[in-house]
Amino acid sequence: MEIKIMRNVLDKNQNKANEIRKLLKEKQIKMFNFISSPGSGKTTILELICKEFAHIKRLGLIEGDAYTDRDAQRLTVFNVPVIQINTEGACHLDSHSISKALENLNLDELDIIIVENVGNLICPTAFDLGEHYRIAVVSTTEGDDKPIKYPMLFREAQAVILNKTDLIPYTNFSLEHFNEDLQKLNGKIPLFRISSTKKDGITPMMNWFKEQFS
Amino acid sequence: MEIKIMRNVLDKNQNKANEIRKLLKEKQIKMFNFISSPGSGKTTILELICKEFAHIKRLGLIEGDAYTDRDAQRLTVFNVPVIQINTEGACHLDSHSISKALENLNLDELDIIIVENVGNLICPTAFDLGEHYRIAVVSTTEGDDKPIKYPMLFREAQAVILNKTDLIPYTNFSLEHFNEDLQKLNGKIPLFRISSTKKDGITPMMNWFKEQFS
Repeated sequence: MEIKIMRNVLDKNQNKANEIRKLLKEKQIKMFNFISSPGSGKTTILELICKEFAHIKRLGLIEGDAYTDRDAQRLTVFNVPVIQINTEGACHLDSHSISKALENLNLDELDIIIVENVGNLICPTAFDLGEHYRIAVVSTTEGDDKPIKYPMLFREAQAVILNKTDLIPYTNFSLEHFNEDLQKLNGKIPLFRISSTKKDGITPMMNWFKEQFS
Repeated sequence: MEIKIMRNVLDKNQNKANEIRKLLKEKQIKMFNFISSPGSGKTTILELICKEFAHIKRLGLIEGDAYTDRDAQRLTVFNVPVIQINTEGACHLDSHSISKALENLNLDELDIIIVENVGNLICPTAFDLGEHYRIAVVSTTEGDDKPIKYPMLFREAQAVILNKTDLIPYTNFSLEHFNEDLQKLNGKIPLFRISSTKKDGITPMMNWFKEQFS
């Protein structure tokens, strides 16, 4: 019974996601969905992306959070439209909340929409938001076992950003183990190793985004 | 409609949790529910607790994971019963899965049960498992904004373990901000600042567990 209800929820989500993808195609907008654990550095990475691209591409941001608008506040300085979705304790965004957020953006004046999902490696993976790219962000301090423990995310992502590489010397994170597990799940996926606070390894990641944004 | 379904799920969960609490009282067992983000160090902390207490208390462990049994494998060396629950992609444990796990433990031969929940700061908070203590684990590398962003967990916990304090010098984590926000949510909660890998600050935490275990 509960499985049927869940199936129903996912079917409804998928239908709305398909509608969104169709709408975004008409408007020639590409949408990116950033998924990670709490505190892996998604917002800091979005700050870097805004800094790099806000003056050459028309960006819009959708910030998902369980309760606060802290992350959205951090991003308002870039003079790009930011829509906050508070899920009131729910652990993921769904396509219905994205659809409502899109009503509050002027889609005729945007090229790129970036969604920062709620910090969680599990449920956001099951909910298609109508995005074109799913970006998995994971930090070295979470341990090198994340691909094998959360395979769905890494299997379905179009790129992986491994953040906090500056902290590797102080942890037992093995890049070799991480890579090995990731390769098994998704052999061709681009992996960007960065420190968002130290700004290490940023250029290859920015080049990739530039390519996808154009 | 969806809210009603959710309410129903939570009501059923609560009824079963109440049954579990009654059963554990009869058996004179105390149950602890460890909740954290992925990779905050729950399993390493459980290793330390097993090492400290497995020879003086009769421990049992229930390991929740979305897919793998990696954490359970790590804990089998302590010669305590370990039950693995794979949620098959669900983002939290519920009282029904705990009830089934308890059927596989000999409750007449246990004093303490420790549950390691699925790595997630949101949904596990909504699902009472029948535990007596809820322990919030958070690592410094996740940032100092976790109490304010995930208030439910910190409001309802009986203790907070702040892990990876050895990495504070390499991050922008502010213990002052963290403490301030935590105090507002839950003024009297014990906070243990530790490095589980460097074994810093372990003694006060172990003393607290010793007191609760007796």
